Amino acid sequence: MSKALPKRSENYSEWYNELVKRADLAEHSAVKGCMVIKPYGYAIWEKMQRALDDMFKATGHQNAYFPLFVPKSFLEKEEEHAEGFAKECAVVTHYRLKSNPDGKGLVVDPDAKLEEELIVRPTSEAVIWNTYKGWIQSWRDLPILINQWANVVRWEMRTRLFLRTTEFLWQEGHTAHATSEEAIEETEKMLGVYATFAEDWMALPVLKGLKSANERFAGAVETYCIEAMMQDGKALQSGTSHFLGQNFAKSFDVKFVNKDNQPEYAWATSWGLSTRMMGALVMAHSDDNGLVLPPKLAPIQTVIVPIYRSEEDLAKITKRINPIVERLKSLGVSVKFDADDKYKPGYKFAEYELRGVPVRLAIGMRDLENGTVEVARRDTLSKETIPLDGIESKIVALLDEIQANIYQKALAFREANTFQIDSWDDFKVQIEKGGFIEAHWDGTSETEERIKTETKATIRLIPLETTEESGACVYSGEPSKQRVVFARSY
Amino acid sequence: MSKALPKRSENYSEWYNELVKRADLAEHSAVKGCMVIKPYGYAIWEKMQRALDDMFKATGHQNAYFPLFVPKSFLEKEEEHAEGFAKECAVVTHYRLKSNPDGKGLVVDPDAKLEEELIVRPTSEAVIWNTYKGWIQSWRDLPILINQWANVVRWEMRTRLFLRTTEFLWQEGHTAHATSEEAIEETEKMLGVYATFAEDWMALPVLKGLKSANERFAGAVETYCIEAMMQDGKALQSGTSHFLGQNFAKSFDVKFVNKDNQPEYAWATSWGLSTRMMGALVMAHSDDNGLVLPPKLAPIQTVIVPIYRSEEDLAKITKRINPIVERLKSLGVSVKFDADDKYKPGYKFAEYELRGVPVRLAIGMRDLENGTVEVARRDTLSKETIPLDGIESKIVALLDEIQANIYQKALAFREANTFQIDSWDDFKVQIEKGGFIEAHWDGTSETEERIKTETKATIRLIPLETTEESGACVYSGEPSKQRVVFARSY
Repeated sequence: MSKALPKRSENYSEWYNELVKRADLAEHSAVKGCMVIKPYGYAIWEKMQRALDDMFKATGHQNAYFPLFVPKSFLEKEEEHAEGFAKECAVVTHYRLKSNPDGKGLVVDPDAKLEEELIVRPTSEAVIWNTYKGWIQSWRDLPILINQWANVVRWEMRTRLFLRTTEFLWQEGHTAHATSEEAIEETEKMLGVYATFAEDWMALPVLKGLKSANERFAGAVETYCIEAMMQDGKALQSGTSHFLGQNFAKSFDVKFVNKDNQPEYAWATSWGLSTRMMGALVMAHSDDNGLVLPPKLAPIQTVIVPIYRSEEDLAKITKRINPIVERLKSLGVSVKFDADDKYKPGYKFAEYELRGVPVRLAIGMRDLENGTVEVARRDTLSKETIPLDGIESKIVALLDEIQANIYQKALAFREANTFQIDSWDDFKVQIEKGGFIEAHWDGTSETEERIKTETKATIRLIPLETTEESGACVYSGEPSKQRVVFARSY
Repeated sequence: MSKALPKRSENYSEWYNELVKRADLAEHSAVKGCMVIKPYGYAIWEKMQRALDDMFKATGHQNAYFPLFVPKSFLEKEEEHAEGFAKECAVVTHYRLKSNPDGKGLVVDPDAKLEEELIVRPTSEAVIWNTYKGWIQSWRDLPILINQWANVVRWEMRTRLFLRTTEFLWQEGHTAHATSEEAIEETEKMLGVYATFAEDWMALPVLKGLKSANERFAGAVETYCIEAMMQDGKALQSGTSHFLGQNFAKSFDVKFVNKDNQPEYAWATSWGLSTRMMGALVMAHSDDNGLVLPPKLAPIQTVIVPIYRSEEDLAKITKRINPIVERLKSLGVSVKFDADDKYKPGYKFAEYELRGVPVRLAIGMRDLENGTVEVARRDTLSKETIPLDGIESKIVALLDEIQANIYQKALAFREANTFQIDSWDDFKVQIEKGGFIEAHWDGTSETEERIKTETKATIRLIPLETTEESGACVYSGEPSKQRVVFARSY
């Protein structure tokens, strides 16, 4: 380990950037705005993928794969969608390089200009709905419930590892339905899947709600989202599910014959969750010592570090530990016995702390004599010495306890940093301190824009589960029926 | 089902194209040269991915993710590599569209021209070795054993679903080592993994060998490959593993301090296997009725079709079948009970035959009375009626038997279509009939080129496991030490 991490309290932003790099999650590549996801980071992403993919399949979805390129004319078809993505896309204009006639190297071959430019997909509604046109003729062909795991590109000027990168990895679900009701039900169901994933796997409490018109996905009728609070009190949008109405079906002329034998445009949803969630995972739980990973997503859930002077001592420890390692594996715990003698135990402890391994066991010769082991929890940084006998079931229980504790800690933090605010002066003061503000809003885009301009706060969501409560807009004083959630955000 | 498939004997090529589409594996997209992999096809690819990924991890590799884009200057660094890929690559030149000032739609914004063009990766050696430069300082940092699952783009003028598409999916392993020996060992180990995957999972017998210099990967010192025979006697390259020497380390200046404290360039390998294998799977085993899938890669391994007249009958069958379905699932068999009453049993039989479901059970009221069920094997198209009691273990055994039988059939076919040829006249006659030709070759690129020009046959590989045998080159008559394998290929 080199020098300590920056402290969250001193420079949250720098703490995040450094932690992502030092914990070997990701790094900037030489390609502007694109990241390299390193093996340790990718192993976490694989666990996220597996969990989500299982949930998608359990809810009746299948995976498929659609082209990386979107012809420009496809993007143009849905007007709002085009406007939303045209300004930040990678454009392929040629299909060949040739040797530089004037010297060394390669140049673009002007004879290999494409008749129509291809856009590297920023999202796949256009290319997928153009495909669905061939798949949907009758109500019998519906619903179509498809998900795609893919890379997408949105040209960003200011990038941050995981949170905002030009290329990122995600899944995008694209479904087609015979009725509006069914499509809305799907939109809400997938929001539920995201919320379950965030809370049960990432240990990340989320609010569920609707976006205001200003914050909607380009081309959506309604955008649902989950929002989580980071440790600096800012919000991070952690998954969106869109009800697209018949917008894309109309743009791509996707009609089906309904049960009454009438032609009708299909109803659509799309929903996505990306490597951005890796950023949320880091920002929500980690501390000044490094990552704190929820056990369900930790590539290594338990590490065992032997403390020894001689090879004979190591052999004795190994003999005692090996059956424990095997039993832990058979219980589904991913465990590493780190007998690498290139590094000292103290160095290893710091490394595993930095990498967020939930449970660390240390065992020396005295432990071996006493039949004990030292167990350190990453979430609380507490240690205790307990008997080796029956350690396996204790670790399994401890991992569950840590998973629950990380969630509870994040929930308590969010609750302590959520404020009901009813005056504009209080709003301006509170937003500087951070946190979520529940306030009344008059429902107009104008007010929303003014609040954003004056405070950098946006409406994160209009909560789905809320109590109606009449009040006056915190900014305009106009009447309002429910509070919405304001915050600054990533 | 619409009209029958074309017959292999009449038009093998058309049979393949139609089968891929009708069995819902893939279709052409509106984006030139790019395919849509449909859910059924993607489910097979997912099974391939899982099997390979498990083998990569078992051999010590980790997954990571590197950028989609390769700056032009990176591609230029390794000269042969650049030459090999420059002529068929998608070039990103701009990062923004804007509203057309002269009318409707979007146009490329000339103000958003990139300073340096970006190439959509045709393969990732350049971008990865540029990254490894930052990761490798000492022998302690080696080996680096990384794999990436990704999409790549090679601009193809003539495309065929799975076999040759502009965009395809693959995995690419990229490893760095301290010694040449270790890198060669890795190259051979991964060739072995591919051969095991092809034979044990795809039921596809393969030959292992080296490519001739003409057929080597651009930038490799040595290319190892596995080659399989399709039912028309042509060869299909099914995975390659490259020993890259220090070529990329030198191009990207990746040096490490070795154990003797001397700076040295790192040694590299790369190895890849793509969605092309989906094409091999179809072409190697399927018949005029449709797909024949090896059970280990079949999304549905067993389908159960009830034959009934009334709802009561169906209820009785369902009651008897449900526990069987549960037991099969618990034994790891993916099973579907198809009680959909939109289609008749005959239609379903044909559909599942088209889709290559290995085992089909049909059960009617008489079967229920007799305690029997009709079992149909997809590979042999044979049927027999057997007792329902104990059906589960019989199905498990039958799936193993089918897996083995499909492999044996393909092996017997290859053996029957492999010929040792010693005269040029015989060579020319045999190559028209198809199959693999084992012949002596004088080892020169000139002879290889002439044989290719005259017969369209290439050296598929120089076998790894072979007996030395001195002879005379089948074309030039010059001396030769071993036979090599010639064939026409995909």
